[in-house]
Amino acid sequence: MSKQLRVGMVGYAFMGAAHSQAWRTVNHAFDLPLSARMQAVSGRSAQAVAAAATRLGWAEHTTDWRSLITRDDIDLIDICSPGDTHFEIALAALAAGKHVLCEKPLANTVAEAREMAAAAEAARTTGVVAMCGFNYRRVPAVTLMREMVAAGRIGDVRHIRANYLQDWIVDPWFPLVWRLRKEVAGSGALGDIGAHIVDLTQHVTGQSITTVSALTETFVKRRPLPGSDELGDVTVDDAALFLARLSGGAIATYEATRFATGRKNGLRVELNGSLGTLAFDFERMNELEFYDATKPAAERGFTRILVTEPEHPYMTAWWPAGHPIGYEHTFTHQARDLIEAISTGQHPAPSFTDALQVQLVLDAVSRSAETCSWTTVEQPEEKS
Amino acid sequence: MSKQLRVGMVGYAFMGAAHSQAWRTVNHAFDLPLSARMQAVSGRSAQAVAAAATRLGWAEHTTDWRSLITRDDIDLIDICSPGDTHFEIALAALAAGKHVLCEKPLANTVAEAREMAAAAEAARTTGVVAMCGFNYRRVPAVTLMREMVAAGRIGDVRHIRANYLQDWIVDPWFPLVWRLRKEVAGSGALGDIGAHIVDLTQHVTGQSITTVSALTETFVKRRPLPGSDELGDVTVDDAALFLARLSGGAIATYEATRFATGRKNGLRVELNGSLGTLAFDFERMNELEFYDATKPAAERGFTRILVTEPEHPYMTAWWPAGHPIGYEHTFTHQARDLIEAISTGQHPAPSFTDALQVQLVLDAVSRSAETCSWTTVEQPEEKS
Amino acid sequence: MSKQLRVGMVGYAFMGAAHSQAWRTVNHAFDLPLSARMQAVSGRSAQAVAAAATRLGWAEHTTDWRSLITRDDIDLIDICSPGDTHFEIALAALAAGKHVLCEKPLANTVAEAREMAAAAEAARTTGVVAMCGFNYRRVPAVTLMREMVAAGRIGDVRHIRANYLQDWIVDPWFPLVWRLRKEVAGSGALGDIGAHIVDLTQHVTGQSITTVSALTETFVKRRPLPGSDELGDVTVDDAALFLARLSGGAIATYEATRFATGRKNGLRVELNGSLGTLAFDFERMNELEFYDATKPAAERGFTRILVTEPEHPYMTAWWPAGHPIGYEHTFTHQARDLIEAISTGQHPAPSFTDALQVQLVLDAVSRSAETCSWTTVEQPEEKS
Amino acid sequence: MSKQLRVGMVGYAFMGAAHSQAWRTVNHAFDLPLSARMQAVSGRSAQAVAAAATRLGWAEHTTDWRSLITRDDIDLIDICSPGDTHFEIALAALAAGKHVLCEKPLANTVAEAREMAAAAEAARTTGVVAMCGFNYRRVPAVTLMREMVAAGRIGDVRHIRANYLQDWIVDPWFPLVWRLRKEVAGSGALGDIGAHIVDLTQHVTGQSITTVSALTETFVKRRPLPGSDELGDVTVDDAALFLARLSGGAIATYEATRFATGRKNGLRVELNGSLGTLAFDFERMNELEFYDATKPAAERGFTRILVTEPEHPYMTAWWPAGHPIGYEHTFTHQARDLIEAISTGQHPAPSFTDALQVQLVLDAVSRSAETCSWTTVEQPEEKS
Repeated sequence: MSKQLRVGMVGYAFMGAAHSQAWRTVNHAFDLPLSARMQAVSGRSAQAVAAAATRLGWAEHTTDWRSLITRDDIDLIDICSPGDTHFEIALAALAAGKHVLCEKPLANTVAEAREMAAAAEAARTTGVVAMCGFNYRRVPAVTLMREMVAAGRIGDVRHIRANYLQDWIVDPWFPLVWRLRKEVAGSGALGDIGAHIVDLTQHVTGQSITTVSALTETFVKRRPLPGSDELGDVTVDDAALFLARLSGGAIATYEATRFATGRKNGLRVELNGSLGTLAFDFERMNELEFYDATKPAAERGFTRILVTEPEHPYMTAWWPAGHPIGYEHTFTHQARDLIEAISTGQHPAPSFTDALQVQLVLDAVSRSAETCSWTTVEQPEEKS
Repeated sequence: MSKQLRVGMVGYAFMGAAHSQAWRTVNHAFDLPLSARMQAVSGRSAQAVAAAATRLGWAEHTTDWRSLITRDDIDLIDICSPGDTHFEIALAALAAGKHVLCEKPLANTVAEAREMAAAAEAARTTGVVAMCGFNYRRVPAVTLMREMVAAGRIGDVRHIRANYLQDWIVDPWFPLVWRLRKEVAGSGALGDIGAHIVDLTQHVTGQSITTVSALTETFVKRRPLPGSDELGDVTVDDAALFLARLSGGAIATYEATRFATGRKNGLRVELNGSLGTLAFDFERMNELEFYDATKPAAERGFTRILVTEPEHPYMTAWWPAGHPIGYEHTFTHQARDLIEAISTGQHPAPSFTDALQVQLVLDAVSRSAETCSWTTVEQPEEKS
Repeated sequence: MSKQLRVGMVGYAFMGAAHSQAWRTVNHAFDLPLSARMQAVSGRSAQAVAAAATRLGWAEHTTDWRSLITRDDIDLIDICSPGDTHFEIALAALAAGKHVLCEKPLANTVAEAREMAAAAEAARTTGVVAMCGFNYRRVPAVTLMREMVAAGRIGDVRHIRANYLQDWIVDPWFPLVWRLRKEVAGSGALGDIGAHIVDLTQHVTGQSITTVSALTETFVKRRPLPGSDELGDVTVDDAALFLARLSGGAIATYEATRFATGRKNGLRVELNGSLGTLAFDFERMNELEFYDATKPAAERGFTRILVTEPEHPYMTAWWPAGHPIGYEHTFTHQARDLIEAISTGQHPAPSFTDALQVQLVLDAVSRSAETCSWTTVEQPEEKS
Repeated sequence: MSKQLRVGMVGYAFMGAAHSQAWRTVNHAFDLPLSARMQAVSGRSAQAVAAAATRLGWAEHTTDWRSLITRDDIDLIDICSPGDTHFEIALAALAAGKHVLCEKPLANTVAEAREMAAAAEAARTTGVVAMCGFNYRRVPAVTLMREMVAAGRIGDVRHIRANYLQDWIVDPWFPLVWRLRKEVAGSGALGDIGAHIVDLTQHVTGQSITTVSALTETFVKRRPLPGSDELGDVTVDDAALFLARLSGGAIATYEATRFATGRKNGLRVELNGSLGTLAFDFERMNELEFYDATKPAAERGFTRILVTEPEHPYMTAWWPAGHPIGYEHTFTHQARDLIEAISTGQHPAPSFTDALQVQLVLDAVSRSAETCSWTTVEQPEEKS
């Protein structure tokens, strides 16, 4: 094949497994100018990272992420570790001239995100590429949604109704894992899953959130410490709800929660426009609902588009019509777009500046919830 | 208001209640040349028919159905009694110059049905009108389905997939009611619910069933006699399945059963044509699914038409868009069409001859199941 | 039959037609201590009210609603006229010792509603009954939802997600009808449809809204005057969105809009509790979705309960399982409950005080939207 | 890692790509005693097979499938070429002591299938394993369906309703590809997709089809030869429909068609039992519908089980609950089970004898359609 893109990955848990599947698959699904090579993975525990390297298919492993950055035979650093590590790793990688793929949220604070975005913009001038991993943009049905909005198929977007509903901590005896601790995770449902619907809705509509009114809630305030009988304080939100106004005149409701019993990964977005409506639910990720108000009245209705046709985004790489794809394919599509971008020296979307803008929205949401007041979202100076 | 149509109804059980609701409602929903008057109801038990008259809103009651026919102040005989009574009542009514609405199945045998059809054709020449009560034709979504097929929206119909699924006798201790006795009911699932999908599919496609291969089954062969500990023989089919070829080249599967656990009134029809597909399920009777293969590939899919718009059949009579109607409305629509027909002296569809044709199909199905062979359906000489 | 309940109705448009269908049907569907008699209807135009009386089945008609109140042969005043007329009619009727059924919203202002509630409470002591017409409480699936919450089937309710989505004024050339004028309608989507989801969610959860943060929007600010080329100002909201906290600890998003293209009458409520979830959508009004988190993990999921069984609220009155009912049945159920209440001298829910409480919520929402701040809901002194 | 399983694959089109994805992935998803190695692929065209080897990730390639069999460094032959080649390749591979995975249909004739089954049974005694590739058995929802039937969750199965609906040749100008030629493909929809529902329904119910009545149809009888203006004869069925009786008393309708416009890969199976119902549709492959008739009447309904929980078959290998998997995962699960079987020397299901039994059903269906008569299915002497 072609020239290689040698990857070093930091972290090997849920996101690490998903990224590994993508790197392993991308060149078999797509015809690309660079061939991904899974060079090395790093992690804190020597034993665990060795096992992960074998299981996930990385050629080498290390407990020192810095060693990945100093090696000459690694071209891209793929950051899959918790949010409180992103800042240091990403800055070091960019400084070393490595391309960077960083999982969302970009950082745990606006200050960090701002510095990372500045570093990425500076690196861009030298052909170094940085991308933030909002993988849901690459669900074919979501990409199609964006294309249809851009093509004017639903006219002016007036309403956005965005939920991200999970239920994995409804049980009050579920332990106090790192995702429930503010110092590691930054926030709870808001940053973990709320970030996705903030990014996704802005991405598909082309409108930015300008002002918000929010509330957050922690339903279960103390939980058992992992492997212990003792209880500790939950320091993040279980749920975050907010109203928003957007730059193009749309109004919106957002809801991110880990307490929607029975909803497992219910990322749902509905857009009502002047000419139609589009609706998506990740639990049925191969489908997109479309209402076309320009059709004759007697035949109007919501059309369930099965997004598995060769005419649909990314789908020529996969199976015949009617054969669903899964969650992991979103990461493979992300890897594809990143490889294309690297080969041309273009920043792929979402850039670190895009991710900073999401962080600014989340920050405004947090402040709004704290102050019980409408809060204006600061916009980054330049958004790609 | 206008001239009256004075109705005498025979029978007051399930169908009697549904027809009563229709006669009571029809002139308030539709602007019609005749005003229905609920003159009298007849039934075998003096006490029960008196109570029914009060409950259902009939002005008078009697235990002698013949008295309804001899009265001058009754214009239409509405036959809602079991199938083994239809023949005698309908012939007497037609002979007396009364209009007749007869519930399906028209009769329990082909011979009876043939005679009734002949009598109805004869009466037609004197302005007397006869109609058989296949109410599902008057579900707005079904009427729309027929209109869309007729307009060529799905091209040539190639496949028919018709099920009528119920589950009310899955429990082996459910008693041996009259519907499970051949001498009263004629047949089981076949005549009771299979008749509906035979009529409906022929009606919406405009094609006639020409040949069938069938099997029938009685899963529970003995059941408790009503109000008794003793068991009696079930003498009708619990389920009837058949393959069919139709006059226009379509091929079909039909299935009528009372043993589809969880399916309560699952009358489902799907038509696959050369240009599209239409699908209907009575449990969601306000919806029609439409696939239009002539649309751009990326936007194709099944459109769930909510059949509650003023542009839809019968719906100007009811509520604003999005407000569902129910089962009983099909009888009100039937009453409306019957009144329109009487006022113009036209036989309304389905005529008795149409119903005879359904009976001939059911007869071919029964014989096919008995002989385990493909069986040709006799066609009536003239079908309206 | 039994003793009569003689009804006089004010107004004969959409609500008048729905109420008429209920009065005509209720005694044929249910066995009740009083028999409704459709005595007289009033309306402003002599010609139109005469036609309406004939079409809807009222014995008499008048242009003077006051005459209904002074007549001795009328027991109940049914108020179906626009919101700005409710106050005067209801007070007069109660003063005259008539029972009152008043369509929602109870009034156009809190002050009016407060006075009406006080009058109703006073009248109650003399056996006079007053009820507000929040008909959606009487959808069997909604009543079942309430019963299941009360029985603890979903545990503590944490999330409420309530939308009422319509689209009938998306077209900017739709005329400036009375529902778009504040002086007649009081408010727009908020009072017309938002009122329903406020009432319904409080009713099914047993929790009261205590504080809100809202935004409202008018997307199309000028529209053609009816029958004219000139444009006039739309003086009500097209859409109202708000966050809320409830008395039992639940948090909620509410959205009422007439700009959700393709959603015709999308009244949707989802409740997430500590043990399960319940979800309802009026466009499929015969269904209720239930997730039971106490079942074994491998068999958990959303159960689509077809609410047509004899075990379900109100359903013994209607058809066999699997046979849907429609919108109008909610009014028949309301009439049934009202007749039961009158016969026992009990105020039926929702009382005028319940309706006042809804009005207080709507008022807090309006003020929150105007002031862009969280606003506390005043609670009525006594809520039945 | 562990000991290797060195694979040689014959064919590299649709099935070859799916199998390659499985071999590449299986050891990264599951912890297994053998590690798959993609040793070599064979194909007829030197240039095409070289390109396929690169794209799909095979270490070597050849135009001579026999060379794969004679090599010592290949342990398993994976047959993904058209049906008319299976017989010769499988027999040669088994004779050489290679394990065999053979795509369905096992062969194009019963005679071939019988010989292959005998060879596989003989090879079994020497520890050589043979499996037929009915991948849909390994959809987690289908495996769960089988487990639930076996556990008695729906009681005695009475009805089977099985459809496999596609639409890729509705267009009469679609060319006469090899799948439409009897000499290569054996049959049309019947063998290609009908085989899947025959296998799947027998597998999940544990009942065998004993007798059938069938019809087949070719709607478009002549089509353009590939790359030509000339027309050639379509020599296979476009659609095959049949009724069946099964060994456990169930009755069934089967339908396989390539003319169900809008249905892309609509493999649907519904089983009605004495205690409940299970229903599956591959277009929503992560879901299983379950009706449990033993629950209280007011809470009964169809439960949509999202089959993505760790408690579900195969799912611990993948992502958190609510994250769908896709079509290709069924092949990875198949590879997993095959590797497990090889490591223990057990024939995995479906064995060649199982596949022979499916072939015998298809043969009976074909003969029934030709003779227009009920036809008994011959059963293989021993079925694993």
